[in-house]
Amino acid sequence: MSQLIQQLLDNNREWVQEKLAVDQDYFNRTADGQHPKILWIGCSDSRVPPDQLTKTNPGEIFVHRNIANLVVQTDMNMLSVLQYSVEVLKVEHVIVCGHYGCGGVRAALGTHQYGLIDNWLRQIKDTINFYWELVKDLDETAREKRIVELNVVEQVYNLGKTNIIRNAWQSTGKPFLHGWVYDVKTGLVTEHTPAIHDDAGIDQICKYAASQINLKVRPANQYTSVDSLL
Amino acid sequence: MSQLIQQLLDNNREWVQEKLAVDQDYFNRTADGQHPKILWIGCSDSRVPPDQLTKTNPGEIFVHRNIANLVVQTDMNMLSVLQYSVEVLKVEHVIVCGHYGCGGVRAALGTHQYGLIDNWLRQIKDTINFYWELVKDLDETAREKRIVELNVVEQVYNLGKTNIIRNAWQSTGKPFLHGWVYDVKTGLVTEHTPAIHDDAGIDQICKYAASQINLKVRPANQYTSVDSLL
Amino acid sequence: MSQLIQQLLDNNREWVQEKLAVDQDYFNRTADGQHPKILWIGCSDSRVPPDQLTKTNPGEIFVHRNIANLVVQTDMNMLSVLQYSVEVLKVEHVIVCGHYGCGGVRAALGTHQYGLIDNWLRQIKDTINFYWELVKDLDETAREKRIVELNVVEQVYNLGKTNIIRNAWQSTGKPFLHGWVYDVKTGLVTEHTPAIHDDAGIDQICKYAASQINLKVRPANQYTSVDSLL
Amino acid sequence: MSQLIQQLLDNNREWVQEKLAVDQDYFNRTADGQHPKILWIGCSDSRVPPDQLTKTNPGEIFVHRNIANLVVQTDMNMLSVLQYSVEVLKVEHVIVCGHYGCGGVRAALGTHQYGLIDNWLRQIKDTINFYWELVKDLDETAREKRIVELNVVEQVYNLGKTNIIRNAWQSTGKPFLHGWVYDVKTGLVTEHTPAIHDDAGIDQICKYAASQINLKVRPANQYTSVDSLL
Repeated sequence: MSQLIQQLLDNNREWVQEKLAVDQDYFNRTADGQHPKILWIGCSDSRVPPDQLTKTNPGEIFVHRNIANLVVQTDMNMLSVLQYSVEVLKVEHVIVCGHYGCGGVRAALGTHQYGLIDNWLRQIKDTINFYWELVKDLDETAREKRIVELNVVEQVYNLGKTNIIRNAWQSTGKPFLHGWVYDVKTGLVTEHTPAIHDDAGIDQICKYAASQINLKVRPANQYTSVDSLL
Repeated sequence: MSQLIQQLLDNNREWVQEKLAVDQDYFNRTADGQHPKILWIGCSDSRVPPDQLTKTNPGEIFVHRNIANLVVQTDMNMLSVLQYSVEVLKVEHVIVCGHYGCGGVRAALGTHQYGLIDNWLRQIKDTINFYWELVKDLDETAREKRIVELNVVEQVYNLGKTNIIRNAWQSTGKPFLHGWVYDVKTGLVTEHTPAIHDDAGIDQICKYAASQINLKVRPANQYTSVDSLL
Repeated sequence: MSQLIQQLLDNNREWVQEKLAVDQDYFNRTADGQHPKILWIGCSDSRVPPDQLTKTNPGEIFVHRNIANLVVQTDMNMLSVLQYSVEVLKVEHVIVCGHYGCGGVRAALGTHQYGLIDNWLRQIKDTINFYWELVKDLDETAREKRIVELNVVEQVYNLGKTNIIRNAWQSTGKPFLHGWVYDVKTGLVTEHTPAIHDDAGIDQICKYAASQINLKVRPANQYTSVDSLL
Repeated sequence: MSQLIQQLLDNNREWVQEKLAVDQDYFNRTADGQHPKILWIGCSDSRVPPDQLTKTNPGEIFVHRNIANLVVQTDMNMLSVLQYSVEVLKVEHVIVCGHYGCGGVRAALGTHQYGLIDNWLRQIKDTINFYWELVKDLDETAREKRIVELNVVEQVYNLGKTNIIRNAWQSTGKPFLHGWVYDVKTGLVTEHTPAIHDDAGIDQICKYAASQINLKVRPANQYTSVDSLL
């Protein structure tokens, strides 16, 4: 067997011994079921383990992790996590946590093709396009950090527009949505949205509400409908 | 058996007889394979059958139809159709055809929840939000028509941003992308984009390029990163 | 403009004239809305236009077409079509129509990689694996035809296991599900399932119910759990 | 601010202090990039945090977690994680880790509808159907445990059938695939597949290869094609 895998298995035995040494009933108590109060939607990046950086125990955080912590509104994988945690487990908070140094955001800012994953990352390119005026004059590092932050805000917005969240708000006033960014250079998380639990909160972070979109006038040509609009 | 189903089966026999009466080899000629030059991405709406309204024969148009003719960039269903038709069949044109009176667009303009499909239609709500200044003062009918047109332009843009299309352009200069709208009241199709086969063409219909997005200044508060951006 | 595209646009004008010549109110009557009784889930193949081969008019068939007419149970694209047509339009029949000479089935039977689409076609490989004993001794043409037929039966089964269909059955006893195969060599459609509108019907086409799966005993080794099962 | 959220933020500050107290360069060293050797595909369940139960540090495990640790072959979310970790990060191992007491498996074994998530869990129902003869006589607890184990084996099989994994095997002989189950009652993980890195390995866990499927003969009726097959 691979040494690495053997090491993980050995570590697991060791961990169990440590836990039982402190508390004989440790596993018995959680075996019956889970009652997490938090859903974490984070990046798959190996440097951002949600339980460690929040010093939480098994049982406290329900977790979905994908490339660049995206909330894609037609993604049955994420929607299933969201529905189960909100409607069945009744979590009280949903945290979307991005992080500086995100490979997905970096890829979206560049032009190199990576294959299938490029389809997944397209949404970030739209965020970059929308906010281009804001970030175009920044140096590369600052620009990437801004897009990481804006990407998190976008995902919180996306969550707040799902029926799952809206119906939960209607009936219980929960969960609260939070947009966080983890800094791999310092270990610290910072908040990038207020705690949101209603439409007013979503409006506060809505890029359409927060901006003024002036459509340029174009010279008339054969594509009448487009022209009259754009 | 249901009368309706029996009718369809009878019609099918009749259709075969009619075809063979005119041309004994009709089916033999197409049986070997297909060589369509067109991919049609249209709405599932029963009133918009692509072959009839273009008077084309079996074998001429490769077809994908979904609710509101959407090109969702993480949708494996549509991406598979696109990849197969562009890379294997080497179609020369991709037509996205929307239509006035689209139930999906109407649903996206309203507030009623329809269930699972609401997740699918979220993208149209984003289009509405982006262009709200443009359509807010229109009467209901005119607004819906504008959104139908803008939705088609968006989907052509989405196509032009896929690697499948970009790589095809790089190597062959094809396919050409077209945005059409079908009018159920007149039976006529109209064009709403130029024929696009390169980045310059995509830029022409890009909502970010075609608009000027001014981000409003907000009073400082605890969410520093968001404030400094928005 | 491309000659082909101009031709389609010219054809469209001609088609409108023809329709109006016969019936001045042709388009006015359908403009108000659609009331299709049928949802068609068919292949994108250009040679299989549902309305032509059933001689139906615009307004009669709601249509979804994808590669190899697949019903993937986590596919938001297809599920949205299904939900809208069953719950909002209240269609009375859902027809899954495959066809001989299907490029998707052929690809699944081979070993060549086509890229992204291979992920889409994996389900057909599972069907081939399940029925391998049945088809392995057939010549290539007969095997492909059998898999086309079995693939259609599978998709009808998949439909019958969705909540959308099950809930509709519970409340209205509809829609009826049908599995059809179109023969590109003859133009004829044939039925490959009964008309199904309840669990008993689904059981009739269930491959698990229709087969007897004998699990082989394996020699014990370190993977105890697997061994005791397999 | 919610007390719970404040607690998490306080914990984070505390965690950073602890890390820096032991190693001033702790964060500096990982900030440059990640080099994980492992991709973990696990359940979202809050009781199964991969890094804790394997005592690994940030930077060691790339993580995807969804409901019931499923590998759905058309799921762009999971496929993107897989492609990025295998092709860009070049992980050497992919571990699919299920766990006893899985709410998703329990839901799939029952008949209660949970909504959108039921579409996600359909695949587990197929696993149950396939292995029904094997598990039908077990008591409820034992049956659920068996299905948890078999579900993990299925997902490893699904991984081994993706082009991403197959192409990596072809060019590098890696990654190794592993199927694990975590026992929430004991804290221990056990292996349920060998370490697989080629087709021979996949054949060993293939349910079609491991079983003998005898197709029952059915009485002839009007659905000739189905009858002759089933």
